[in-house]
Amino acid sequence: MSTPTKFLLDESKMPRHWYNIAADLPAPLAPPLHPGTLQPLGPDDLAPLFPMELIMQEVSTEREIPIPEPVREVFRLWRPSPLVRAHRLEKALGTPAKIYYKYEGVSPAGSHKPNTAIPQAWYNAQAGIRKLSTETGAGQWGSSLSFAGALFGIEVLVFQVRISYDQKPYRRALMETYGARCLPSPSTETNCGRAILEKDPNHPGSLGIAISEAVEIAATNKDTNYALGSVLNHVLMHQSIIGLEAMQQFEMAGDDPDIVIGCTGGGSNFAGLAFPFLGQQLRGGRKRRIIAAEPAACPSLTRGKFAYDFGDTAHLTPLTKMHTLGSTFTPPGFHAGGLRYHGMAPMVSHLKELGLIEAVAFHQKACFEAGVTFARAEGIVPAPEANHAVRAAIDEALRCKAEGRSEVIVFNLSGHGHFDMSAYSAYFGDKLVDQPYDEKELAMALSGLPAVPA
Amino acid sequence: MSTPTKFLLDESKMPRHWYNIAADLPAPLAPPLHPGTLQPLGPDDLAPLFPMELIMQEVSTEREIPIPEPVREVFRLWRPSPLVRAHRLEKALGTPAKIYYKYEGVSPAGSHKPNTAIPQAWYNAQAGIRKLSTETGAGQWGSSLSFAGALFGIEVLVFQVRISYDQKPYRRALMETYGARCLPSPSTETNCGRAILEKDPNHPGSLGIAISEAVEIAATNKDTNYALGSVLNHVLMHQSIIGLEAMQQFEMAGDDPDIVIGCTGGGSNFAGLAFPFLGQQLRGGRKRRIIAAEPAACPSLTRGKFAYDFGDTAHLTPLTKMHTLGSTFTPPGFHAGGLRYHGMAPMVSHLKELGLIEAVAFHQKACFEAGVTFARAEGIVPAPEANHAVRAAIDEALRCKAEGRSEVIVFNLSGHGHFDMSAYSAYFGDKLVDQPYDEKELAMALSGLPAVPA
Repeated sequence: MSTPTKFLLDESKMPRHWYNIAADLPAPLAPPLHPGTLQPLGPDDLAPLFPMELIMQEVSTEREIPIPEPVREVFRLWRPSPLVRAHRLEKALGTPAKIYYKYEGVSPAGSHKPNTAIPQAWYNAQAGIRKLSTETGAGQWGSSLSFAGALFGIEVLVFQVRISYDQKPYRRALMETYGARCLPSPSTETNCGRAILEKDPNHPGSLGIAISEAVEIAATNKDTNYALGSVLNHVLMHQSIIGLEAMQQFEMAGDDPDIVIGCTGGGSNFAGLAFPFLGQQLRGGRKRRIIAAEPAACPSLTRGKFAYDFGDTAHLTPLTKMHTLGSTFTPPGFHAGGLRYHGMAPMVSHLKELGLIEAVAFHQKACFEAGVTFARAEGIVPAPEANHAVRAAIDEALRCKAEGRSEVIVFNLSGHGHFDMSAYSAYFGDKLVDQPYDEKELAMALSGLPAVPA
Repeated sequence: MSTPTKFLLDESKMPRHWYNIAADLPAPLAPPLHPGTLQPLGPDDLAPLFPMELIMQEVSTEREIPIPEPVREVFRLWRPSPLVRAHRLEKALGTPAKIYYKYEGVSPAGSHKPNTAIPQAWYNAQAGIRKLSTETGAGQWGSSLSFAGALFGIEVLVFQVRISYDQKPYRRALMETYGARCLPSPSTETNCGRAILEKDPNHPGSLGIAISEAVEIAATNKDTNYALGSVLNHVLMHQSIIGLEAMQQFEMAGDDPDIVIGCTGGGSNFAGLAFPFLGQQLRGGRKRRIIAAEPAACPSLTRGKFAYDFGDTAHLTPLTKMHTLGSTFTPPGFHAGGLRYHGMAPMVSHLKELGLIEAVAFHQKACFEAGVTFARAEGIVPAPEANHAVRAAIDEALRCKAEGRSEVIVFNLSGHGHFDMSAYSAYFGDKLVDQPYDEKELAMALSGLPAVPA
């Protein structure tokens, strides 16, 4: 262990621009469609939901977009985040591979989500917006936007998937600490929530329903905008600060990754680490393996269809072309709420279709096993979502061991698991089940995809 | 905000020695006494519990004691910890004071406790010990020693105060993730536990009882040693890495604190930040205000008696001269389990008696109010224990505002509150009560202090 463990950047070296992979695509992204007309969406169609600056970022093909100084000022509270060489994990695995992780759990909310919550809140505040509505599953995104709202004087209303709301009261307490209001979804505050509760007063909720509620509130209240924590182009771009920092840190380390790994639900933490590296390749640089690790119980990238679909249950959102399991698909319950989404970011889906990234899927027990191995070696207990990336990194390191190769692996440790210890309790109590999704339900959900003229 | 926010030290600048304030004391510490003979304790008396290296540190008057390289290697996972200028808090308070915090919540366990857990586990491992027993209240110490045990191949047995064990299952899950075994105390595995359960099968437990159980296990099992997370001289010394780093970071900042603040339960995080600064003063350097912030419901420093007392309930430990509320005193329930201890570190008590440090006491609602103000400005949600230091820092900053003074304040933000969000829920739900301790019970506990010949 004569080489350093952590590679820290001074805050003066924090990136001043985000990286926009749209500038380097070999083929353009399919446009989002209006849910009513099925025609390509114009900026004005999104104006009821988002401030114009974010809408322009959503469609921009500029390679570099400046990070506003007030946003960088907030990032300084925890960024640049550390890149860490996992010496102890390498030793525990007996691998000749070098394993690095970029640790995003140092943010006040404990995950990478503030990287986009802060700029989203700031652009909204600049546009004179004083209220934001959003949804949250496990609570990582809701608490991050609540934090951002507190900093810029914005009231935040969070629709939290009811089952999480009931099971994870601590995340709600975190949102309230930041001054936000948090409601269980489906709620009685929206038409779509009321309609669902009428049919089933005990509905456990889903991310798709919570999105519908948050969008409805923003669409029907002039003073309220909507914010989304993943999937959209501008959200993925905001996360590129992760990879841009990592590239500087690899220079400090005198190393260069052969394999770049992130877990994928909506796709943002994966994209954040991977896209800057992938962009180098698209501009003629070296080719690396880029691996998305997803849950086998909700396998949009490995088992979904690449097609136009809605982002929500009530079909209020635009249609985007993505890997989807169908907007009516309900994944089985598993302990990585942040990855339980039927669709995948259009940009991640597009790159997968172009053969530029790989995808793997894991069941949860194998992920928790990896997370515990990691925790006992490196100390940090990963969030259940991040355990998918840990599993993929360990598997690659073990392949390197079998093949006698000393490859360089980096993965995004997107958050810590201190809010998710009940999942670890379940794992140790042998109460975790690797429940597969229902093949019939998937077939049905896929058969119900909206018909879009070519 | 043109000045930097964070002051980061490269891991190459991490201190190579701990600072031992015993070298600079103007008057020596009263010796610990054997609980049977009431004679000063010799090193051999402690040998059944601790490895000789730690016993020698406990009585050493060397100013600098080297930090073993394998311990520093582990520290590199998260140390040096950041010193942060609280620009946003200053602005929110409208104070001309400069507020800095040293943030120990970046450790894998989320608090300062691994700073001593790692060396304690390492010295025990070097001495051939493969089992450690300990106690924990809220769980910060138990999880930190569990982490340390995982790194050095030591089995850890943690006696957790029963009421915490029942109310905080997530901390237990964290200990289990690190491979430790965690039992509710009082337990059926010790004589003293069984004796208490016989009288009251539903006894909620206390830190004093849990210490008795852990000490009994170590004293009666040759292969098992005991580890304590605060109070003792060597534990406080291990925490001095906090203040030693902070001094280097203040040099980077071109600033120098006028006021140094820490919360006190056993005294270790306070001592860790404060003693290196106080040592400068004792060696002829500048005088600073050093403030210990304690809970008004368990006010050992402000209301306790400076006298010889036992550290535990079953009177298995040596007697030490300290500020004590009496070993039979039971503080009312409040949400800072890490500060619910009847005694104070002998070294902290000694310095208080010498007039070298100040002490203040706060009720919990005022502490949570301060913590929420801090979280909404700086993002980090402090642990309930750390909120006492936040309260003291805010009060000093408001005094500076009233007096128009631009003093420099630093406090130890000893841990994050992600495991303690139920306490914040109670605060927002208006369910927190500022319960005073029972004056009669305190008088009775103090009247029962052991008689020690002068």
